[in-house]
Amino acid sequence: MANNVIVGQSGGPTAVINSSLAGVFKTAKDLGADKVYGMRHGIHGFLERNIVDMSEKICSDLDLELLKRTPSAFLGSCRYKLPEISEDKEVYDKIFEILKEYDISAFFYIGGNDSMDTIKKLSDYALLINSPIRFMGVPKTIDNDLAVTDHTPGYGSAAKYIASATKELIRDGLVYDIQQVTVIEIMGRNAGWLTGAAALATCEDCEGVDLLYLPELPFDFDDFMERVGHLLETKKNVVIAVSEGIKTKDDKYVFELTDHTEYVDSFGHKQLSGTARFLADSISAKYGCKSRAVELSTLQRCAGHLTSRVDITEAYQVGGSAVKAAFEGETGKMVILKRVSNDPYICTTDIFDVHKIANIEKKVPLEWITEGGTGVSEELVNYIRPLIQAELTPIMITGQPRHIVCDDIVH
Amino acid sequence: MANNVIVGQSGGPTAVINSSLAGVFKTAKDLGADKVYGMRHGIHGFLERNIVDMSEKICSDLDLELLKRTPSAFLGSCRYKLPEISEDKEVYDKIFEILKEYDISAFFYIGGNDSMDTIKKLSDYALLINSPIRFMGVPKTIDNDLAVTDHTPGYGSAAKYIASATKELIRDGLVYDIQQVTVIEIMGRNAGWLTGAAALATCEDCEGVDLLYLPELPFDFDDFMERVGHLLETKKNVVIAVSEGIKTKDDKYVFELTDHTEYVDSFGHKQLSGTARFLADSISAKYGCKSRAVELSTLQRCAGHLTSRVDITEAYQVGGSAVKAAFEGETGKMVILKRVSNDPYICTTDIFDVHKIANIEKKVPLEWITEGGTGVSEELVNYIRPLIQAELTPIMITGQPRHIVCDDIVH
Repeated sequence: MANNVIVGQSGGPTAVINSSLAGVFKTAKDLGADKVYGMRHGIHGFLERNIVDMSEKICSDLDLELLKRTPSAFLGSCRYKLPEISEDKEVYDKIFEILKEYDISAFFYIGGNDSMDTIKKLSDYALLINSPIRFMGVPKTIDNDLAVTDHTPGYGSAAKYIASATKELIRDGLVYDIQQVTVIEIMGRNAGWLTGAAALATCEDCEGVDLLYLPELPFDFDDFMERVGHLLETKKNVVIAVSEGIKTKDDKYVFELTDHTEYVDSFGHKQLSGTARFLADSISAKYGCKSRAVELSTLQRCAGHLTSRVDITEAYQVGGSAVKAAFEGETGKMVILKRVSNDPYICTTDIFDVHKIANIEKKVPLEWITEGGTGVSEELVNYIRPLIQAELTPIMITGQPRHIVCDDIVH
Repeated sequence: MANNVIVGQSGGPTAVINSSLAGVFKTAKDLGADKVYGMRHGIHGFLERNIVDMSEKICSDLDLELLKRTPSAFLGSCRYKLPEISEDKEVYDKIFEILKEYDISAFFYIGGNDSMDTIKKLSDYALLINSPIRFMGVPKTIDNDLAVTDHTPGYGSAAKYIASATKELIRDGLVYDIQQVTVIEIMGRNAGWLTGAAALATCEDCEGVDLLYLPELPFDFDDFMERVGHLLETKKNVVIAVSEGIKTKDDKYVFELTDHTEYVDSFGHKQLSGTARFLADSISAKYGCKSRAVELSTLQRCAGHLTSRVDITEAYQVGGSAVKAAFEGETGKMVILKRVSNDPYICTTDIFDVHKIANIEKKVPLEWITEGGTGVSEELVNYIRPLIQAELTPIMITGQPRHIVCDDIVH
């Protein structure tokens, strides 16, 4: 029997998700896998037999190195949630039919909460039909909202980008001798881990942001405007970081107070945007000062030009650990990161039952949110700091980061 | 008589304007200046005697190196235009009084078009009153719109950031197997040099943007929508780069078709923003596909974490050349860059009469705009490419770029 494995990527891209793919591919080859297949666009593409042989795409050590340093999902991603087994057995039968067709012994899925739900359901179904195929989850999300694991690969690089960009925006805001408010909008629908990273801008050489709003607490618009007013009495350059997901106490997104078009993705998630713009406009209207709205937008998740070496290394490790565990017979598990010590930072991997991880959102502990919901504690800063350390610069060709791509480029 | 000089920074910040400041400071010291003063917030701060001794701020070689790699104007900047000499002699008398007070023999101003107007007027007035003080302009602007000089320091780093971010956004846009349009909004009110840099995303590993709109030509909304419609018939991931300054043929900013609040700065320039958002919303409304508006915002001018080494080196050189020229007796001139050859790229400095530079905007030649105003020629790409080469990475401390700042930081 062939020892073939398959790997897919799912959910929002990150700057280091391909480092996990590299970890799965390299470790599987090293441990004797015959073929390492990749599914294009996750389980959705898999169902259409959109499957590639990774060895035909990653042909050399240089390719592997480029893969580690290429942002966004090399294999493509999807937002596709499997139905409950009780609702639709057919799709499961089709998946296992395709797995048999390719003679797959282990299935790896790199993703966040929704992806771990896929691993949970597939491993459950394998049990049900007595299939020996192993299913392992590899954690990935810039949102850092997965349960049990100390943190998720992807988060450290996004946090580093946010902290560095925030420092640069503060410097830029100080340039004129006039009053100006900058509102920075940061990703994170329900969890404030990313917005909290803006707190790291505070250093010896930077005064940091003045106000920080995480989605864990309700947003009080009147209190916000009053605080901005107070700040403007003594400060020229006011910088505020807000999560895109902040909501008023009657459960309305700040975004919903504006008239922007709104989209809903296939998981039913609202596409948020416009929070910073609305707040900046409100400040200018009330206080007459210059204001600027900056959305860090998708660059915060795909800025391969500024990644954390700690993050990119751990992303590789969790990929490798998933393969090792599967080859030892484990299934229905996700690889987790366990922080052994903070200073010096030491972190190891372990595996954990995916049933206790899938569909649970880990939020910032409320006791780490301070100053009436406008700041964060030193604990949060100390938690994040080790994750943004050191760099792995892109391979620069003719002045730009070089990426490796799965399809031929048509110009 | 003391040989003191003074230097100021004016107009929008760049990632490398401080490298020019470093060039002025170091060269002036090397050539025997007694004191190098810095004016805070340009000529505006100078008039309030907001003046610092640079040697007290830049105390070591490490400080000088940090200065080169710190984005935004170290001394602060201003948007202050001197009146015509005929309109208000008083302000000129005050300036020359302060110059006398500090025993200044040479005055350096790092900036763009409006700043060169200041050098022009001050050197004219010096002639009028028979003052021996020399006035030299040091070019700086991400907009690359200064006349005579081959290009301006600041442009190369902004172009590198734009080209690299565009590549990353294209990668990110390809991740889902769905139809999506990304509209990237790039700075450049009247000149399309920055937006043109998005064309450099097209490489062996990247298909590049599909449409590019520069402000040199009128923007036809109906034609735009039709082209997007055609693209959506064959492509899933459509990426469009637009200048913030594109205008319809009846001279309306696309921005003005929206309801966003609008600000006017003290030079009477409208603050533009919302062009991409308006176009993305229009596309979603008409074609029902997902769309995303990305404003590169101030990060394109202050991203010290991704600068061009060519640019940062030339920024230093023009600062040094200005000092050398002034010490040789020159006044009323701006340092220019002269491209000797493109491949290999060789560039030297020279000086040129500031009267023939100030207040003239250099735009992208119309023959370099192709495909009915939706693309750019190979000439433009070849012009830009050498300017984005190589990197000068920031000095990273605890995972973030370290900056040097002029004032004490209060936490």
